[in-house]
Amino acid sequence: MAKLVECIPNFSCSREKDEAAYNALVDVANSVPGCTLFDAQTDGNHNRCVFTMIGSPEAIEEVAFRLTKKAAEVIDMTKHTGEHSRMGATDVIPFVPTMDVTVEECVEMSKRLGQRIWDELKIPSFLYEDSASTPARQNLAACRKGQFEGMPEKLLQPEWAPDFGERKIHPTAGITAIGARMPLVAFNVNLATADVEVAKKIAKVIRGSSGGFKYCKAMGFMLEDRGIAQVSMNMVNYEGTPLYVVYEQIKALAERYGTYVVDSEIVGLTPAKAMIDCAEFYLKAKDFDCHNQIMEYHLIGME
Amino acid sequence: MAKLVECIPNFSCSREKDEAAYNALVDVANSVPGCTLFDAQTDGNHNRCVFTMIGSPEAIEEVAFRLTKKAAEVIDMTKHTGEHSRMGATDVIPFVPTMDVTVEECVEMSKRLGQRIWDELKIPSFLYEDSASTPARQNLAACRKGQFEGMPEKLLQPEWAPDFGERKIHPTAGITAIGARMPLVAFNVNLATADVEVAKKIAKVIRGSSGGFKYCKAMGFMLEDRGIAQVSMNMVNYEGTPLYVVYEQIKALAERYGTYVVDSEIVGLTPAKAMIDCAEFYLKAKDFDCHNQIMEYHLIGME
Repeated sequence: MAKLVECIPNFSCSREKDEAAYNALVDVANSVPGCTLFDAQTDGNHNRCVFTMIGSPEAIEEVAFRLTKKAAEVIDMTKHTGEHSRMGATDVIPFVPTMDVTVEECVEMSKRLGQRIWDELKIPSFLYEDSASTPARQNLAACRKGQFEGMPEKLLQPEWAPDFGERKIHPTAGITAIGARMPLVAFNVNLATADVEVAKKIAKVIRGSSGGFKYCKAMGFMLEDRGIAQVSMNMVNYEGTPLYVVYEQIKALAERYGTYVVDSEIVGLTPAKAMIDCAEFYLKAKDFDCHNQIMEYHLIGME
Repeated sequence: MAKLVECIPNFSCSREKDEAAYNALVDVANSVPGCTLFDAQTDGNHNRCVFTMIGSPEAIEEVAFRLTKKAAEVIDMTKHTGEHSRMGATDVIPFVPTMDVTVEECVEMSKRLGQRIWDELKIPSFLYEDSASTPARQNLAACRKGQFEGMPEKLLQPEWAPDFGERKIHPTAGITAIGARMPLVAFNVNLATADVEVAKKIAKVIRGSSGGFKYCKAMGFMLEDRGIAQVSMNMVNYEGTPLYVVYEQIKALAERYGTYVVDSEIVGLTPAKAMIDCAEFYLKAKDFDCHNQIMEYHLIGME
């Protein structure tokens, strides 16, 4: 079975504004065997493009380096404008463990890449999310605050030395954020009540920021079309805080408020394992080895 | 996303007894783009080999034909001996829906293949399992009874005309069984009782053969090492009879007999969907679209 990492680098250029630069990046994204460009989005207003790539850890790390190098060649940040905030030609490089890889391995990838793009390209970088060297750097927006134009000054502040490189940006490529994070699962649970306050109270109990589950972000909303209240969640690490744990907690809290769970929604993509872990829990499946026993895992990465 | 079918053809030859014939079949198995030889097992005592292949429906149907043709060229059943019962050079060809394919589509594949190997190779065939034309032919062992040597006489019996071809075997390649079936999930549920009779009573209630769930085969056993009773099941169609349905039924029956479910086991491989369907049930996940929302499904079959 193959180890797979997802990488979603963001570049400060767009097909709409500079087709040659965009095409050069697409070519590089397709240049490393063992890595697939899964999706490419480009936005002229943002003057930004986002690639989604999947591949072996080695291939992904290599293609991320080559893309950073190419972006430094074809993008000049001193001439870049766009609505989206940005600080570098390669603005941000997230690594997401996808199969048979831990987030710790992705953290190591981000650190090796940061060192290499400094050594070979003289582009400094911040480590963010699970790779962050301080809690203040976990949040990408905090790292990027000041943007390309404000970065020379920011890097001179005592607490904002780059994690790799000197306290000055690359003159045309700026600075890059590199980090590892778990895939996100958007999970909403709907309640048999029209009282949105119940959903808000439950959300407050379960979200990490107010004392609940560490990897759960939660808000209470009203679903106007159905006339019922919803606990809307972003599960930012389904292994640290499994879906069935928050679901059971919401069930118990709903009962406390005289209501119950009507149904739930998984919004968009989820890793299979986030769901399979729930099946394992509810079926009390003993010693279940997801990676060896799930047939499809043996098919991914086959030639 | 790719449509995928698994095919597990069995041939009456082995690397141990005839390496040239075995190698010729391996070469053919690797000859069709869009299809991968996933596993090849060979047994000298059985004088038999079993290939596991995965690919698009079209590629799998084509490779199954080419393999049948090659087997007829390199295997002479009049000289074949081996411990495993067999009736043809290509003894049996099962098609199993693996991704985004229905078992009905696999039944159609089996019928087209049966027609083609008669038209082009003059090898007759029986359809078995979900492809069977009569209930008596669902069971492979019933089709194969009499083996190669007894088949000329068997085919003259009124009820044993081949599904494709005339009432006589191919002189050296015999006759082949072709069929579609769902993947099997081996699922055991363990009870907090040392009384094996409880497991046997529950097994009788839930198995299709005695009036229970159509696609569930079940027996009651004693787990000697743990001193507890087990309901041991083969789930032969996890879509027709989902795992959570039998699990909930066993829970209810266990309570009736004054005991409860300690834990369960999934033995060997399972399709991800058999587990994801359980998560969907227990989380009450509304409108969950497994094939579009499970990230890994988008990775299978990618180049």
